[in-house]
Amino acid sequence: MSQSTPRITDVLDDAADSQTSGEQKLSWARQYMPILSTLSEQFERAQPLAGERIAMAMHVEAKTGILVELLRDGGAEVALTGCNPLSTHDDVSAALDAQDGITSYAIRGVGSEDYYDAIDAVLDHDPTITVDDGGDLIFRIHKDRRELLDDIRGGCEETTTGVKRLLLMAEDDELEYPVFAVNDTPMKRLFDNVHGTGEASLASMAMTTNISWAGRTVVVAGYGYCGKGVSRKAAGQNARVIVTEVDPRKALEAHMDGFEVKPMADAAAEGEVFITTTGNRDVLVRDHFEVMQDGAVLANAGHFDIEIDLEALEAYADSSRGARAGITAYELPDGRTINVLAEGRLVNLATPIALGHPIGVMDQSFGIQAVCVRELVEHGDRYSPGVHSVPDSLDRDVADIKLEAEGIAYDTLTEAQEDYLASWAHGT
Amino acid sequence: MSQSTPRITDVLDDAADSQTSGEQKLSWARQYMPILSTLSEQFERAQPLAGERIAMAMHVEAKTGILVELLRDGGAEVALTGCNPLSTHDDVSAALDAQDGITSYAIRGVGSEDYYDAIDAVLDHDPTITVDDGGDLIFRIHKDRRELLDDIRGGCEETTTGVKRLLLMAEDDELEYPVFAVNDTPMKRLFDNVHGTGEASLASMAMTTNISWAGRTVVVAGYGYCGKGVSRKAAGQNARVIVTEVDPRKALEAHMDGFEVKPMADAAAEGEVFITTTGNRDVLVRDHFEVMQDGAVLANAGHFDIEIDLEALEAYADSSRGARAGITAYELPDGRTINVLAEGRLVNLATPIALGHPIGVMDQSFGIQAVCVRELVEHGDRYSPGVHSVPDSLDRDVADIKLEAEGIAYDTLTEAQEDYLASWAHGT
Amino acid sequence: MSQSTPRITDVLDDAADSQTSGEQKLSWARQYMPILSTLSEQFERAQPLAGERIAMAMHVEAKTGILVELLRDGGAEVALTGCNPLSTHDDVSAALDAQDGITSYAIRGVGSEDYYDAIDAVLDHDPTITVDDGGDLIFRIHKDRRELLDDIRGGCEETTTGVKRLLLMAEDDELEYPVFAVNDTPMKRLFDNVHGTGEASLASMAMTTNISWAGRTVVVAGYGYCGKGVSRKAAGQNARVIVTEVDPRKALEAHMDGFEVKPMADAAAEGEVFITTTGNRDVLVRDHFEVMQDGAVLANAGHFDIEIDLEALEAYADSSRGARAGITAYELPDGRTINVLAEGRLVNLATPIALGHPIGVMDQSFGIQAVCVRELVEHGDRYSPGVHSVPDSLDRDVADIKLEAEGIAYDTLTEAQEDYLASWAHGT
Amino acid sequence: MSQSTPRITDVLDDAADSQTSGEQKLSWARQYMPILSTLSEQFERAQPLAGERIAMAMHVEAKTGILVELLRDGGAEVALTGCNPLSTHDDVSAALDAQDGITSYAIRGVGSEDYYDAIDAVLDHDPTITVDDGGDLIFRIHKDRRELLDDIRGGCEETTTGVKRLLLMAEDDELEYPVFAVNDTPMKRLFDNVHGTGEASLASMAMTTNISWAGRTVVVAGYGYCGKGVSRKAAGQNARVIVTEVDPRKALEAHMDGFEVKPMADAAAEGEVFITTTGNRDVLVRDHFEVMQDGAVLANAGHFDIEIDLEALEAYADSSRGARAGITAYELPDGRTINVLAEGRLVNLATPIALGHPIGVMDQSFGIQAVCVRELVEHGDRYSPGVHSVPDSLDRDVADIKLEAEGIAYDTLTEAQEDYLASWAHGT
Repeated sequence: MSQSTPRITDVLDDAADSQTSGEQKLSWARQYMPILSTLSEQFERAQPLAGERIAMAMHVEAKTGILVELLRDGGAEVALTGCNPLSTHDDVSAALDAQDGITSYAIRGVGSEDYYDAIDAVLDHDPTITVDDGGDLIFRIHKDRRELLDDIRGGCEETTTGVKRLLLMAEDDELEYPVFAVNDTPMKRLFDNVHGTGEASLASMAMTTNISWAGRTVVVAGYGYCGKGVSRKAAGQNARVIVTEVDPRKALEAHMDGFEVKPMADAAAEGEVFITTTGNRDVLVRDHFEVMQDGAVLANAGHFDIEIDLEALEAYADSSRGARAGITAYELPDGRTINVLAEGRLVNLATPIALGHPIGVMDQSFGIQAVCVRELVEHGDRYSPGVHSVPDSLDRDVADIKLEAEGIAYDTLTEAQEDYLASWAHGT
Repeated sequence: MSQSTPRITDVLDDAADSQTSGEQKLSWARQYMPILSTLSEQFERAQPLAGERIAMAMHVEAKTGILVELLRDGGAEVALTGCNPLSTHDDVSAALDAQDGITSYAIRGVGSEDYYDAIDAVLDHDPTITVDDGGDLIFRIHKDRRELLDDIRGGCEETTTGVKRLLLMAEDDELEYPVFAVNDTPMKRLFDNVHGTGEASLASMAMTTNISWAGRTVVVAGYGYCGKGVSRKAAGQNARVIVTEVDPRKALEAHMDGFEVKPMADAAAEGEVFITTTGNRDVLVRDHFEVMQDGAVLANAGHFDIEIDLEALEAYADSSRGARAGITAYELPDGRTINVLAEGRLVNLATPIALGHPIGVMDQSFGIQAVCVRELVEHGDRYSPGVHSVPDSLDRDVADIKLEAEGIAYDTLTEAQEDYLASWAHGT
Repeated sequence: MSQSTPRITDVLDDAADSQTSGEQKLSWARQYMPILSTLSEQFERAQPLAGERIAMAMHVEAKTGILVELLRDGGAEVALTGCNPLSTHDDVSAALDAQDGITSYAIRGVGSEDYYDAIDAVLDHDPTITVDDGGDLIFRIHKDRRELLDDIRGGCEETTTGVKRLLLMAEDDELEYPVFAVNDTPMKRLFDNVHGTGEASLASMAMTTNISWAGRTVVVAGYGYCGKGVSRKAAGQNARVIVTEVDPRKALEAHMDGFEVKPMADAAAEGEVFITTTGNRDVLVRDHFEVMQDGAVLANAGHFDIEIDLEALEAYADSSRGARAGITAYELPDGRTINVLAEGRLVNLATPIALGHPIGVMDQSFGIQAVCVRELVEHGDRYSPGVHSVPDSLDRDVADIKLEAEGIAYDTLTEAQEDYLASWAHGT
Repeated sequence: MSQSTPRITDVLDDAADSQTSGEQKLSWARQYMPILSTLSEQFERAQPLAGERIAMAMHVEAKTGILVELLRDGGAEVALTGCNPLSTHDDVSAALDAQDGITSYAIRGVGSEDYYDAIDAVLDHDPTITVDDGGDLIFRIHKDRRELLDDIRGGCEETTTGVKRLLLMAEDDELEYPVFAVNDTPMKRLFDNVHGTGEASLASMAMTTNISWAGRTVVVAGYGYCGKGVSRKAAGQNARVIVTEVDPRKALEAHMDGFEVKPMADAAAEGEVFITTTGNRDVLVRDHFEVMQDGAVLANAGHFDIEIDLEALEAYADSSRGARAGITAYELPDGRTINVLAEGRLVNLATPIALGHPIGVMDQSFGIQAVCVRELVEHGDRYSPGVHSVPDSLDRDVADIKLEAEGIAYDTLTEAQEDYLASWAHGT
């Protein structure tokens, strides 16, 4: 839309330096992304995306950059921006923007208006495919840019939160093109959510606070895939984990895994560290702040910064101050301090030292993104408007690429075994 | 009903002693089954099953007995037999048979003919509901006793293997009444398969062989729910676990969980202990026997005794002998010995000391069975012929009963949270 | 030797059958004891124990039998009895007694008088070496059979408890010959106590009670090596573990490992299962029985049956009864039941199905026993009366034998590395 | 010693800003150091160190700063410098130097000459007590500043490496005053080495490289306390761990814990990440570099930067370059890249984002340091020149302070229990 919406390279003082630094980061990530490397060879040769225009709103850092390059290598023109104002790495954004076939509007720390201007600038490229992490492109298109709908073959959505919103939209018959719920594949959920969020959140917290997990009472809100990952990896580092849940079956699952399960009202007084992973709002609120221990550490590993009610904390506190890089300390009237990491935003992405998910984990997620984009181009007509699971065969393909890259072989069913599985006429 | 098919109490020499011993076992189990206890109070009061005739083919031991009693307490007449010739506890069978409203044909160690005679004897009670573990009742009815179909409201199936067979049957439009796939609920899969099979298989093996897990190389065939349970709990006791798989995504999942993944051809030479959990045939075959270490221990934790090719082992071996209670030693031509537990049958059920799944795990599985039977009686007309998932609300109910019995509270969504989850119109 | 003290083969009705069964058990154990197998070849060739008379009071079951055979193969005459009336396997005892060079007085279930008569019968063989598990031989010799002291070169003691008592004796200058504290080597403590007691106690409990660990609240009394093993392996099977301790450093260690730490007064009301591993008396007493949950399961994994105050429980209860094989149920006045396993004796040895420590673990412990006995014969004069650590070199030798048997290689220090370690004159 | 040796505040351009930033870091650390807080109250009141002069060479960052303040609060004058040129935080150093009673010469990144000048400058304060981490003060005093020996009561040494060197010195009768081997207490070894080094090394590596542990093949060199911590916490985050060792008993211990054990020659080709924890030189050398995978990541968690032979790597490589902050990439002739973290220095201290050990862990280590310093002042005459274990009672005191601060109670022995433990005259 507005011609005034800047690309990243328009706004950096030290564009050249940034590009160098960004290229260095891209080069590091590339080294540990065997799936994207394998796909890149395939895409460059076959040019499956020739003539496509891809709009992306993702966390713009090095790993995403390798996906962007891969899509471009496959023949597409790519325009991208961030999906979170604090997760953009300007240097990576600049190094991408400097490449042929890639335009980046992602700039760290922009305000809400500039954020949505950048979304619009990306959409001005008249995309044939959208790739989202949280659904911002899709929602903008459906609400305000419906003229774009004609040209769009389909989209991909990366997160649980985004998929949830799309499903609600689809239920209301409001979703006008097919979207792959990349999040819902086993490949994505197990690896990205369990291992990625689990490890990266804890490492980011450890290196921001310098506190240890051994003997620490850690309250994990939510026992979905992310919550499980955080719980297991904290326990795997000798924390004592307490889980809160709203679903009785997940509560029971956490209990059977050996964790304590309590309502947050009780857990709040016991916890030393709190990590929210629910995808819902108001998980930690005034009632909880009132009973927390002095020095309690609060972090959010869910997509949006709504899980910790910071407005309530602000209102309750006498004052707040930066306690360390990435930590805001709230001084409460009774002398206690509550320390909030990354302003309640995704702790594995938004602390100053955060690097987001581990590279290998994103290699898997983005491998699925890439084959999904190819599928939309090659067979988009097979998919009606609405949310679609990633077809099993794509998921298997990506797993195969990864296993081969890791040098791992596995068994194949014999004919007799396939027959056995295919028949019900055999007895005890 | 063929008069010649004996009830258990007809065949025992020491029927009275057996009953006493069986009652003792029932009394022990009852103590650790809070879900069935809670349901029993509800069922006795409300008599939801009044007038029903329930046919059951299950592993007849104490825990199952408490389910049988519960269904009877709810008003039904129950006829039962075993679903595996080696898993019946005669004393429990006798103690059940001695009760009003219960007839038991389950006798340990019967041959194939008597086994199917007992199935028929149960069916002669003209059931309105079938409860299976492996599908034998349903298959018998559909193949040979189709006259019974008219009176049957529906059925429940306990295992993965049975459900697989039923799904194939339903695909062919051969399944004539609704069946709840009890196995496929989170409650069943996670708790019964992961925790139940996992713990009970390993404990049964440890107490049969007297070998330890620490430092032991354990090859787990299959990384489904059972395989995961076995792998994690073996690793949790300091084993080194190698996983074999045929699905690349599960292979990758095992790899990302930190286990080594190999084809069985390679794992066979490295393993000291082998546990099959695939639900498929020919998992361990001659090629593998040829390279196994002297003293290798083989056990099966899958439903049928087809995973280890014992015929091939028998043919290959010079001789076999009972090495210890529950262990057959095969002496190979080159002097090596391979030790097979429980004749390749379910190791957590079929060793002499085996007690099957832990009580608490079965309390959950059987709690779902009970509410599913009640659902079939109360709302059976809502379900068309075919395989049905357990309705979410039943599953939640059982989880709630269990959590309450354990004294565990959990959170409830506020209205604002429910609104948030229900709406897609909120942004970054 | 009192002619009236019977050997095992004198008292069995079915001595031949027992021998066969015992030989089968010995043959099974031999298969998984690579250290003793390797030593057996060395001992047979070199006859290091020729002319020695070895008195043993040990848990007489198959694994111990392989040690007994090894010592005999090394040239010694061996006389043995049990160190716990309930841990003897009569068939193994008979199979040993039937061999040349071995006399066994161990009979299961004897009363206190017969127990000590058997100790005396063993001592009547006029030993040159004593091998104890709990110190009974040594204490009897020092109190009542001092005439034997002259001929004795030295002894070995297997357990923590025995060593503790010997150290107190040595402090009082009451110990008249050198004794190797086999228990105190890293090889013994880490493998036998942590892995052996840990795994075997839990498996014995699981197979006796049929309860599961997942989600179970397990109270472990004591966080020494045994308590650590039990705690970790219970947590490794998804139990929630609470630790009680009397030493603040061990309490803190348990806390830092992620376990909850509480006084028993508090833990008693929360626990579902209690396992004592302290080596001390009165760990579970009336005050605790009063607040335990209905159905609480109590077991002891410490050497003596003094950790659970059964007298107090008996006095408190209205009645007691056998609930299952190996379980006594105490009915309390208020209707609660408390279930005690194996009469409070070592749960990994004294339940009906118990097999004691895993074979491989005992292979290591007994490997050290064997080389210690050889050391006493070959270099006994190097050791003054008192308690001695196992010399480092013996310990290393046994580790080397084991690693070689497992096919595990490890690194060797280079000369430069040895120099580095040997010198303090290198800087930052 | 030269008067020209600058204090930190002499050399900083932005001293005031640095002080503010340093004070903020100190304030953060103080919040999570309950032991030092409790001791600080005691020390301020009792002034046990009045008149003492304490020389310290430690990693100068916030946690150490709280110890420095505590010693000063106890009445001492403290002079300090770094024990590693890369671990100093200049802002913390400045904030300490600005306080009464504290002089700091620690400056980040100084060369070898300046490093030793700072050591000398600290010694110019004519200390009565030395506190070392690696032994630099003690060695300097004994080699070049023997005139200081007269005034010195004793010292404390923090690390394994330092203690090893001191023991060798004491063996040669070269150690002239008593030194507490703080490292060798259970409190230090278990918490600092296992939990501290374990967690902080892995978190520092994860946040420097952005690689994940799940499914990663991690080679840990050495299975001492540090190696165990690294191995367990990597496995606890789903890595596949391979251990290398030179001691057969530790090799066996690692094997029994479930890890693979191999010579480094074999592990080098399999590993993706290598972490050295041996305290010895030449652990990773040319032979290993030759077979490592492309992209291998190398880090050292041992005290000195001698474990990875960087000279050999430099000679072997075609070129090297900064790949990311804290990572040097070596490009090998055959196109492979090997990535070395923190120039082979302590990875938990020397990467740009590293914060050293977790705060709580250091609270325990430094709590012991503080009570040891007090012990030297109050009862120094009880200790002869040489290396001394920390007296049991001090260790217990610190554990008690920590448990009380955490709100954890534990059991006390009854008189009957103490009698039982104190007597050997009780039987089976």
